[in-house]
Amino acid sequence: MNKKGLLFIVSAPSGAGKTTLCKELASSPAVGSLRHSVSHTTRGKRPGEMEGEHYYFVSEDKFAAIRDSGGFVEWAKVHGNLYGTSRAELERIFAGGGDVILDIDTQGAAKVRESGTGGVFIFILPPSMQELEKRLRSRNSDDEDEIRRRLARAVEEIKSFGMYDYIIVNDNMLKALDELAAVVKAERRKLQNVDPEWITKNFGV
Amino acid sequence: MNKKGLLFIVSAPSGAGKTTLCKELASSPAVGSLRHSVSHTTRGKRPGEMEGEHYYFVSEDKFAAIRDSGGFVEWAKVHGNLYGTSRAELERIFAGGGDVILDIDTQGAAKVRESGTGGVFIFILPPSMQELEKRLRSRNSDDEDEIRRRLARAVEEIKSFGMYDYIIVNDNMLKALDELAAVVKAERRKLQNVDPEWITKNFGV
Repeated sequence: MNKKGLLFIVSAPSGAGKTTLCKELASSPAVGSLRHSVSHTTRGKRPGEMEGEHYYFVSEDKFAAIRDSGGFVEWAKVHGNLYGTSRAELERIFAGGGDVILDIDTQGAAKVRESGTGGVFIFILPPSMQELEKRLRSRNSDDEDEIRRRLARAVEEIKSFGMYDYIIVNDNMLKALDELAAVVKAERRKLQNVDPEWITKNFGV
Repeated sequence: MNKKGLLFIVSAPSGAGKTTLCKELASSPAVGSLRHSVSHTTRGKRPGEMEGEHYYFVSEDKFAAIRDSGGFVEWAKVHGNLYGTSRAELERIFAGGGDVILDIDTQGAAKVRESGTGGVFIFILPPSMQELEKRLRSRNSDDEDEIRRRLARAVEEIKSFGMYDYIIVNDNMLKALDELAAVVKAERRKLQNVDPEWITKNFGV
């Protein structure tokens, strides 16, 4: 009964639990068809990576051609390589009856907003800065400077919360996952996302 | 972390399963504090009815005074008696930290919209007219004329679907209940319903 697929954009500061939440969400049977989109990239293929599964591997020229024709809803340069989410990829998933989840940072989310493609913007917060610091420290993988950098970056990202449609606090993973799933289910039932013809035909009104 | 309580307005044609769904929703622990508001009425108290629990029993003069001062978000005359939902009752529940669920027909919902009080409007549909007719007939309580009247009224009510924010199809009771709960949970996480001070204080941003 839906008009077309929906795009869910999920951002969070590092340590808020976004990656786990998005993975759990996309694999939850109760949520139905929600898929991660495959990005385009100019970086080389690594052993074991599959074209169209991990990335669409393209040349810099090809990337630039897609970008210059407005074919990306967002793109970024990371460590010298280009990465982008193409409109064609989103349309491919929508055509198959699926919705898309895009796990992306606040700068990428801002670009999707600017692209005018529409979407549901969700921001995941840790319960507090103290808890975020505790989580980053408990990883034991970063030195003090790196932890400081991540915390400073988290503050910058949290300042962008006003750009999002929904704010979810990840105090408890199961509760946060339930709320994330609730946003997906509720958005699918929004009047503007329901095909009015489904109603008029089904009820003769 | 929410600014204030939310008002959820639920309408449906007779036979769509609204009453059961609203009752189950309000009693679901996963949904949290969601309460039915107590209406004002001018009809006489029946044996076993409690003031402030089943209704606020008021005189016609008192009812008119509240109504004329804009104290009702909606009111209606049914079989010669007046019934209304007061703003004071909603505020009383909000002050206690609860959200309100208002189970009301499309005309009442239209009045709440006009009152400017705000709210989340949810419409519950049966899966089809055929199924609705089947459900009404299986009750074995109405004669043919009454069934015809109910079906004709259902068509009129379904025509109002465009006034609602969410459309839920009650094909399967548990699925419809899950979607209704999803709308409640998602609305609580909407940016405009979250207290921005909670975020700025908690994260020093």
